Amino acid sequence: MLFICGQQGKSVINAFNEFRMGQKSDEKKELLWQSRFSEPFDEDALRFSSSVEVDCALYKEDIQGSIAHVTMLSEENIISSDDAEKIIAGLKEIEKEFDAGQVPLDWREEDIHTVIENRLKEKIGAVAGKVHSGRSRNDQVATDTRLYMRRQIDALTLALENMNDTLLKKAEEHVDTIILGYTHLQRAQPILLSHYYMAYLEMFSRDIERVQDLRKRVNRSPLGAAAFAGSSLPVNTRRTAALLGFDDIFSNSIDAISDRDILIEFASACSIIMMHLSRFSEDLILWTTEEFKFLELKDAFATGSSIMPQKKNADIAELVRGKTGRVYGDLIALLTIMKGLPLSYNRDMQEDKPPLFDAAKTAIESVNIFNKLLQNTVVNKARLKSVTENDLSLATEIAEYLVGKDVPFRDAHRITGKLVSFSLQTGTPLPKISLEDYQKFSPVFESDIYDSLTPESSVRRKKSAGSTSPESVQMQLERQKGKKQK
Amino acid sequence: MLFICGQQGKSVINAFNEFRMGQKSDEKKELLWQSRFSEPFDEDALRFSSSVEVDCALYKEDIQGSIAHVTMLSEENIISSDDAEKIIAGLKEIEKEFDAGQVPLDWREEDIHTVIENRLKEKIGAVAGKVHSGRSRNDQVATDTRLYMRRQIDALTLALENMNDTLLKKAEEHVDTIILGYTHLQRAQPILLSHYYMAYLEMFSRDIERVQDLRKRVNRSPLGAAAFAGSSLPVNTRRTAALLGFDDIFSNSIDAISDRDILIEFASACSIIMMHLSRFSEDLILWTTEEFKFLELKDAFATGSSIMPQKKNADIAELVRGKTGRVYGDLIALLTIMKGLPLSYNRDMQEDKPPLFDAAKTAIESVNIFNKLLQNTVVNKARLKSVTENDLSLATEIAEYLVGKDVPFRDAHRITGKLVSFSLQTGTPLPKISLEDYQKFSPVFESDIYDSLTPESSVRRKKSAGSTSPESVQMQLERQKGKKQK
Amino acid sequence: MLFICGQQGKSVINAFNEFRMGQKSDEKKELLWQSRFSEPFDEDALRFSSSVEVDCALYKEDIQGSIAHVTMLSEENIISSDDAEKIIAGLKEIEKEFDAGQVPLDWREEDIHTVIENRLKEKIGAVAGKVHSGRSRNDQVATDTRLYMRRQIDALTLALENMNDTLLKKAEEHVDTIILGYTHLQRAQPILLSHYYMAYLEMFSRDIERVQDLRKRVNRSPLGAAAFAGSSLPVNTRRTAALLGFDDIFSNSIDAISDRDILIEFASACSIIMMHLSRFSEDLILWTTEEFKFLELKDAFATGSSIMPQKKNADIAELVRGKTGRVYGDLIALLTIMKGLPLSYNRDMQEDKPPLFDAAKTAIESVNIFNKLLQNTVVNKARLKSVTENDLSLATEIAEYLVGKDVPFRDAHRITGKLVSFSLQTGTPLPKISLEDYQKFSPVFESDIYDSLTPESSVRRKKSAGSTSPESVQMQLERQKGKKQK
Amino acid sequence: MLFICGQQGKSVINAFNEFRMGQKSDEKKELLWQSRFSEPFDEDALRFSSSVEVDCALYKEDIQGSIAHVTMLSEENIISSDDAEKIIAGLKEIEKEFDAGQVPLDWREEDIHTVIENRLKEKIGAVAGKVHSGRSRNDQVATDTRLYMRRQIDALTLALENMNDTLLKKAEEHVDTIILGYTHLQRAQPILLSHYYMAYLEMFSRDIERVQDLRKRVNRSPLGAAAFAGSSLPVNTRRTAALLGFDDIFSNSIDAISDRDILIEFASACSIIMMHLSRFSEDLILWTTEEFKFLELKDAFATGSSIMPQKKNADIAELVRGKTGRVYGDLIALLTIMKGLPLSYNRDMQEDKPPLFDAAKTAIESVNIFNKLLQNTVVNKARLKSVTENDLSLATEIAEYLVGKDVPFRDAHRITGKLVSFSLQTGTPLPKISLEDYQKFSPVFESDIYDSLTPESSVRRKKSAGSTSPESVQMQLERQKGKKQK
Repeated sequence: MLFICGQQGKSVINAFNEFRMGQKSDEKKELLWQSRFSEPFDEDALRFSSSVEVDCALYKEDIQGSIAHVTMLSEENIISSDDAEKIIAGLKEIEKEFDAGQVPLDWREEDIHTVIENRLKEKIGAVAGKVHSGRSRNDQVATDTRLYMRRQIDALTLALENMNDTLLKKAEEHVDTIILGYTHLQRAQPILLSHYYMAYLEMFSRDIERVQDLRKRVNRSPLGAAAFAGSSLPVNTRRTAALLGFDDIFSNSIDAISDRDILIEFASACSIIMMHLSRFSEDLILWTTEEFKFLELKDAFATGSSIMPQKKNADIAELVRGKTGRVYGDLIALLTIMKGLPLSYNRDMQEDKPPLFDAAKTAIESVNIFNKLLQNTVVNKARLKSVTENDLSLATEIAEYLVGKDVPFRDAHRITGKLVSFSLQTGTPLPKISLEDYQKFSPVFESDIYDSLTPESSVRRKKSAGSTSPESVQMQLERQKGKKQK
Repeated sequence: MLFICGQQGKSVINAFNEFRMGQKSDEKKELLWQSRFSEPFDEDALRFSSSVEVDCALYKEDIQGSIAHVTMLSEENIISSDDAEKIIAGLKEIEKEFDAGQVPLDWREEDIHTVIENRLKEKIGAVAGKVHSGRSRNDQVATDTRLYMRRQIDALTLALENMNDTLLKKAEEHVDTIILGYTHLQRAQPILLSHYYMAYLEMFSRDIERVQDLRKRVNRSPLGAAAFAGSSLPVNTRRTAALLGFDDIFSNSIDAISDRDILIEFASACSIIMMHLSRFSEDLILWTTEEFKFLELKDAFATGSSIMPQKKNADIAELVRGKTGRVYGDLIALLTIMKGLPLSYNRDMQEDKPPLFDAAKTAIESVNIFNKLLQNTVVNKARLKSVTENDLSLATEIAEYLVGKDVPFRDAHRITGKLVSFSLQTGTPLPKISLEDYQKFSPVFESDIYDSLTPESSVRRKKSAGSTSPESVQMQLERQKGKKQK
Repeated sequence: MLFICGQQGKSVINAFNEFRMGQKSDEKKELLWQSRFSEPFDEDALRFSSSVEVDCALYKEDIQGSIAHVTMLSEENIISSDDAEKIIAGLKEIEKEFDAGQVPLDWREEDIHTVIENRLKEKIGAVAGKVHSGRSRNDQVATDTRLYMRRQIDALTLALENMNDTLLKKAEEHVDTIILGYTHLQRAQPILLSHYYMAYLEMFSRDIERVQDLRKRVNRSPLGAAAFAGSSLPVNTRRTAALLGFDDIFSNSIDAISDRDILIEFASACSIIMMHLSRFSEDLILWTTEEFKFLELKDAFATGSSIMPQKKNADIAELVRGKTGRVYGDLIALLTIMKGLPLSYNRDMQEDKPPLFDAAKTAIESVNIFNKLLQNTVVNKARLKSVTENDLSLATEIAEYLVGKDVPFRDAHRITGKLVSFSLQTGTPLPKISLEDYQKFSPVFESDIYDSLTPESSVRRKKSAGSTSPESVQMQLERQKGKKQK
Repeated sequence: MLFICGQQGKSVINAFNEFRMGQKSDEKKELLWQSRFSEPFDEDALRFSSSVEVDCALYKEDIQGSIAHVTMLSEENIISSDDAEKIIAGLKEIEKEFDAGQVPLDWREEDIHTVIENRLKEKIGAVAGKVHSGRSRNDQVATDTRLYMRRQIDALTLALENMNDTLLKKAEEHVDTIILGYTHLQRAQPILLSHYYMAYLEMFSRDIERVQDLRKRVNRSPLGAAAFAGSSLPVNTRRTAALLGFDDIFSNSIDAISDRDILIEFASACSIIMMHLSRFSEDLILWTTEEFKFLELKDAFATGSSIMPQKKNADIAELVRGKTGRVYGDLIALLTIMKGLPLSYNRDMQEDKPPLFDAAKTAIESVNIFNKLLQNTVVNKARLKSVTENDLSLATEIAEYLVGKDVPFRDAHRITGKLVSFSLQTGTPLPKISLEDYQKFSPVFESDIYDSLTPESSVRRKKSAGSTSPESVQMQLERQKGKKQK
C-alpha cells in the first residue's frame, strides 16, 4: 500500500526524490531484459510492475548476499580478486549511503536489485556486471528473503522473550493476589493472578518454539540455484551459505526458487501470536472498564477523548486487537498468491513481499508495545479482594464440601444450585448464610463449611499439577526461572 | 505497511519531512484529549497509534467535509459568518498546500484531522477550534471515509466501463474468429472468439451492478452523529448532506459511527473483480504460451528475462493474478477487525483504512492495466484456424448428427466414443476418416456427415439464446451497444 | 465434511442405506461418460469425486428444474407430450419419495442428478433419458444452485425481518429506559435503550437490502446454456425461465455456466450478517455478566455448568459469535476455489456447494436463534438507573454547560477534566459536588448546573437528527413502523 | 454442515435413528447442569448448540481418555477398583457398539461425552457418574482433541511418506528423461524430469517436518486441568498422560483448556500441503492438455463427458486443487473463532471441531488420491523429445557459449536476443541455423556451438550443487534413499 498524499498518483517516495534531486528523474533507463524487444516497455506497465518501493526494505540483505557471492566467485577464480575487491568496496559504500538515507529510489529501476546494480555501475563501471555471474534474480531474491526472515524471526523471538520476562515478573509480584477466573465471561472460580499471567507465558513460549522450528527451515541457503536449473559455472554453494551464516544449502534448485511455504508458515506463526495478543487485549480492555475495574492503566498508556473529558481508554490494546485482522489478511494473501501456480517461478510471487513485511513488522511491534503496556498497568488489589470474597464463584467449594461428606456429586450440585438461588433471592452472600439456613438444604453441613468459603481456601485446596494452588504456581515459576538461566 | 529503507524504524515520510524542513521536528505537541492526565502519552505508544501516514490520503475529503460543516454552522448561526469565512479560506489554502506536496506530515500529530486542525490554527489562530463545534472525530472520519469510497467507486466503475468498451471492440473485431472452447482445460467445442470476450463483458457488467448497488448504501451522510449519541447543538444534518452530494442522511447516530459493513461490502466487490481478472489472466497466460499460441503480446507489454534471452513473458497478467491475494487479504482483514466488537466506536476500527485503501487502489489499477494489456494482444488467426479445423472437439457434432438420424443419445455417445478412439489410434482427424470407415461404426452415416465436421458448422448450428452462434453473438453485441447509447 | 461414526471411513448415510436396504449395494453402476474408456473408473477416485452426500440437498430444485425443462421440450415438440407426461409423473413420485426419506443414496452414483435419472429409469424405463435433451449437467447444476439460493435468500430475508420486528418491539418497550453508551468499552454518554436497539435494526435493514440486491442477480435463468456453447436444439430458454419463476435469462452461455460470483456475493452478505450478530452477541455477553448486569437471560435460554452450580452462561450468543468464523471460512473457500481458473467449467467448482450450503444454513439459523434469544432477555432497569445516575459519563454535559456560558470548548474540556479528577479523588459523584466546589474550578458555574447532571437531561438535550433524544428516537420508530405497513 | 435430505430440516442422522428405533425419541433428557434453573432449556436452543453430530467422530478418543482416567482414579484410590472395572468394561462394550454402528445418536444429548455417559449409566447404573471425578468437560474435550490430532498427524505423515515413495520411484524411472522447465509458464531451460519430481519430494519433506514439529506440541496431556483451575482431588496427571501415550503434561491448567493454537497450526500445515498439491495439480492438468501433451492419464484415472465423447479430463487433480479452498477456509474459521476471546473457556470454541475435522480429512484424502493419480500417469517420451530438441529454451546455452568465449554477459545476452529474433522470423530452430549465419551475429562462433545446442548438453553442463545435471540429480536420489533406509 502506497501513501498517496497530495497529487493523485504520486507517492511520497517520488516526491521525496524529486525534492532531493532538485529535478524530475525523467530519463528512461534500459531494463536488463529488453534487448530482444523492438519497443520499450510500456510506462504504465512498468509502474504497475515495479517493486522498488516495497523491496527497498531488503537493501541490506541484498548487499550482504552480493558480497558473499562475489567473495566466493573470487575464491573459486570465477572472477579476479581485483574485481572482487572493487565490487565489495562499492557495495559497502552503497550500504552506507542507504543507511544514511541518501539513495534516491526511482520506480523506473524495477526492483532493489537493479537499483543497487545501477548504483554500483555508476561507482565502479562495467565491472559491476560481474556480480551477476552464476546468479539469477530468482535465487538472489530467495536469498534476500531468507536473510530478512531470519532477522525478523530473531527480532520476534527477542520480543517474545522480553514479554515473558515481564510476565514472569508480574507473576512473581502477584503470587498472593487472588482474582476471579472466568469461563463464558461469567465468574467461575477464584485463581491466583500469577497463574493467569503464567498461562500467557505458556502461550508465548509455544510461539517462540514455533518460530524457532521455522528458523531451521528458513536458514537454508538457496543461493546457487540460479534461474531454477542451477548454474553451469562452478559456484560453491556451501561456501556462500557459510559466509551468510546459513546452516545448510538447498537440495534441489527448482524447489529452492519456487516455493514460498516458509513465508506462509511465518505469517501463520505471526497470526497465532496476534490471536494470543488479541485475547490478552480483550482481557485487559475488560479489566480496565468501570464495570470490572481489576486493572488501571498508568496515564502514560491511557488515552482520552477530545469530546468526553472523563474517558480513559485502553486504545493500545484495542489497536493490537485490531491489527490481528491485518496479519490474518497477510496470511490469506500469501496462501492465495501461491494457490495453483505451476512450477517454477511466476511473477505472481513478487506479491509475496508486502504481506511478509507487514506481518513481521506488525507482529514485532505489537508484541513490544503490548509488553510495555503491561508494564504500565496497576492491579487494583482492593477491588479484587472485594469481588472475590463474597462471590458465588465459591459455590464449587460448597459442592466439593458436600462430596467430601459423601454426598454424590450430582446431588451436591443440585443442593448447591438451590443454595445459589437462595443467596440471589435473599441477597445474602454464600459465606454470610447462617448455619441453620445451610442445614435446611442439607443436614450434613457443619460449621467447618465456613472454612471453605474463602477464595484463599478455594485456591489452596487445588491438588493437581499445573493447578492454581500456591504450591503449583510456585513450581511453575521455578521451572520458568530455571529455563531462563540456561 | 511502511517503507523502511535506510535507518531502522525511520520511515520515508519522516526522512522527507526532515529533509524538507532542514531540521528534526522534535518538539512535543499537545494532544487534544490530554488535559485529564498527569503524564504525557508514551512516545512509543503514540508512534504505534498514529495514523497520519495512512489517513493523509483523506486530506481532500477531510477538508471538503469541514467546509460543508462550517458552512452549515454559519447558516444555522452556530458560528458567525465572519468566522466561517476565515475558516473556509484557511482550509482552501491548506488544500492547495497539500496538492502541491508542501505539508509536512508528523506522526506525532496522531491523525490527519489533527494535522489539518493544527495547520489551520497556525494560519488563522484560535478561531480554528470552532470547526469542531457539534462534531466529533467519530462522525468526521465516517464522513471522510464515505466521500473517499464514493470517489473510488466512481473510479472503479469508470475503469470497468473502459474495460467493457475494449471487450466490445475486440468482440466486434472477432465476430468471425473461431477458437476452441475449453472445459477442464481440455478442448471441448468450437466457439466464436467474440462470444468468449462477451462472457467477460457480462462478468464485469455484474461487477458494475454490484458497486452501484453499494454506492446507494455508501452515499448516506453520517455527519451530525457526533461521538455516537448526536449533538446538543442544532446541527442541520440534511444541509451538510446536500452540500457534500449525499443522497440521504443516517437514521441512527450510533449506527452511523459504529458500523463498517460498507467497507467489507466494498472489499468483497473488489475481491470478486480480482477473481474475474485472475481467471482472465490465467487464460491470457495460457494463450500466450508456446503450447497454446493463440495470442501474442505486443512488445510494449511483454517482459523478458535477464538470463534467458528467448523469454517473452506475460508478467502483467501474472501480477494481476497475484494481486488477487492482496485484495482477498484486505477483505479478511476487515472482517476480522469487526468481528465481536461491542458498540459503539472502538479503536480497532482505525485499522479499517489500510485494507480499504489497498483494495481500492489495487482493484482500480488492476482493471486499468489489464484493459491496456488486452489492447496490446494480437490474435494468432492462423494458429486458431489450424487447431480448430481437424480437432476432436468436433466429436459432439457427430453425436448430434447421429441423434438427428434418430439414434438414441446414449448410443450416439458410445458410437462417437469409438470413432474418437479410432481417430487417435490411426492418427486420422475426424473429418479425414473415410465414409466407409464411418459406416463401419454405424450404417446411418452418409456423406453429409462431412458438412457437420467443420468448426463453422458447429458454431452455426447452435440454436439457443445466448449461444455461440453468429446470430446469437450478434444479438448480444447489439444489446450491449444499445445499453451504451443510453 | 463427512460424518464418520462407527467404522472408520463409513458415513452415517451409508450405514443408513445399508440398514434400510438390508444389504450392501455393491454392484457397480455405469457412469454416463464411460463409453470411451477401456478401464472402469478407479473406486477410490470415484469415492473422492462423488458429491451425492452433499448435493442431495438440491433434490427438490433438481426435480423442479427437470419438470420445467421437460414441459418446454414437449411444448416445443422436441419430445412428445406422452413422454413428457411420463417423465413428469415419475419425477413427482421421486420427489415424494425423497420427502419421505425413502431414497437410498449411493455415492457410486456420482451426483444427485445421476441418482434422480437412474431412479427415473427404474420407474419409467429408457424414456427417462430424454430429460437430458438440450441440457448438460453444467447448466442443470447452475439452475439448481440458483433456485436453491433464491429459496435461501427468501428464508434469510424473512429471518432478518422477524429479527427487526423483535427489535422494534423492544425499542418501543424501552423508549424511556436510559442506558450507558460506550466507546472503547468505557462509559461514554447516556443513551436511550431504544436508540441502541434501533441501531441494530438499521444494520439488519442494510443486510436485507444487500441480499435483495443480490436476489436480482441470482434470479436469472442459466438453463439452456448446455455445456457452455449453447444447444443445437431449439430450446426455449425464456419459457423455462418463466416456468421456474426467474425474472430474466442469461445473456451469454459461457458466462452462464462458468461464473460463481453470486455465490461469493452471498457468502459475503452472510459474513456481514454474522459480523453484525457477533457484535450483538458480544454486547449481550457483556451485559449479562455479573459486572455489567444490564440484562438477564430467562432460564430457558441460559445454560449452566456441570461443575460450577452458580453459572448462568449465554452460550447461544457465544455460539453465534463462534459461528462467524465458519461463515468467514466459507467465503474464503469460495474465493480461493475460483481464483485463477481458466474458462469455462472446471471440476474445482464442484467444491462450491459445501461452503454455499454451510453459509446459508449457519446464517439463517443464527439469525433465528438470536432473535429468540433476544426475546428471552429481561432488562434490569434498577441496575441501569443506578449506573447512569451518578456516572462520570455526565461529564460531557458539564463541558457543554460551560460552552453554553461562552467558555471556549478547549478550556471547557480542561476544566471538566479537572472536575473529573476531583470526583475520582474525593469519591464524590459529579451531581453531588457542591456548588462552591464547582465554582472553585470556574466562576461561571451556577445552580442550574445540577439540571444538566441527570441522564434524562443529557439525553433530552440532544438536538440533531438521528440522535438519542426521545423525539428523535420516536421519529425513528415511526419511520420504521411506516415502512412495515407498506 | 448438516445433511438435509428428505424432509426440510431433518437430518439423515435423525432419520436413521428414528428408523432404527422404530419410534421418535421424544422424551426429554435432563442435562447435567439444569438443576439451578426453573425452566427447561429451550428446544431450538438445544438443537442449535448440540454438537453430537460432529463430535461423535471423537467417540474412540473419548472412551480411551475415560479408561485412562478411571484407571488412574482407581490406582490413586479415588474410586474403588471394583467400580473402575465395571466402568472400564462398560466403556469397552460401548466402543464395540460404536464400531458396529449400533449407537443411536440423539442431538438432545448435547455432545458425545453425554451420549457415552448416558449409555454407560444405562449399562452399569449410577456408578457411571464416577467417571467424572476430578475431570470437567473442558479438559476432557481438550484431551480427546489432542488424541484425535495425534492420530491424524500420523496418518498425514504416512500419506506424505507414501507420496514421496512414489516420487522417488518416478524420479528413478526418469533419470534420463529431459523435459522443459518453465518460468512464467514460458519455456525456459531443459531439465531432467527426475529433477522436477524431486522438487516436489523436497516440498512434501518439509511438510512432514512441519507436522512432526507440531506433533511435539500436540502430544502433551491436558487431562487434570479440570474446568481451568485444576482439581482438588489428587489426580495423577503424569499417570494418565503415560497411559495415553503423551510425552509430557501441561504446565498451566488455564492454558491447557483455553488455547487452540495447535489446531490453527495444524490447519496451517494442511493449507500448505494443499497449496503444494494445488501447484502439482496445475502442472498435471497442463501437462495432460492436448497442447502440452507431456503426460497421459491411464483410463482408470481419467473422466469423460456425458455430452462430449472425446473428452479426457483430469478431474481428480481439479478437485484436489479446488479442495485447497476448503482447507484455507478451515484455517480462517479457526483463526476467526479464537480472535479476541477472553480467557478461559468460551462456548465459541465448540466451533473448532468442524474445521479441524474437515482440514484433516481433506488433506489426508487429497494426498492419498493424488499419490494414486500420479501412479496412473504415463510420460509421453516421444513428445518430450520433440519439444525439447529444437526449442528456443536452448538460447541460454548460446549466451553461455559466448561468455565462455569471453564476450561480456550483457553483450552475449544481446547477441542471443537477436539470434532468437532471427530464428523466429526465418522459422529456423536454433540448432539448424548455419554457422555462417551464426557468425553474422558474432565472429566468435565456431562449429562447436552445435555441441551446446542439445537439451542433453544443456542439462549436463550444469555444475552447481542441487542443479538439474545428471550427477546432481543422482546425488539427490542417493541422499533420499539413504534417508529412507534409516
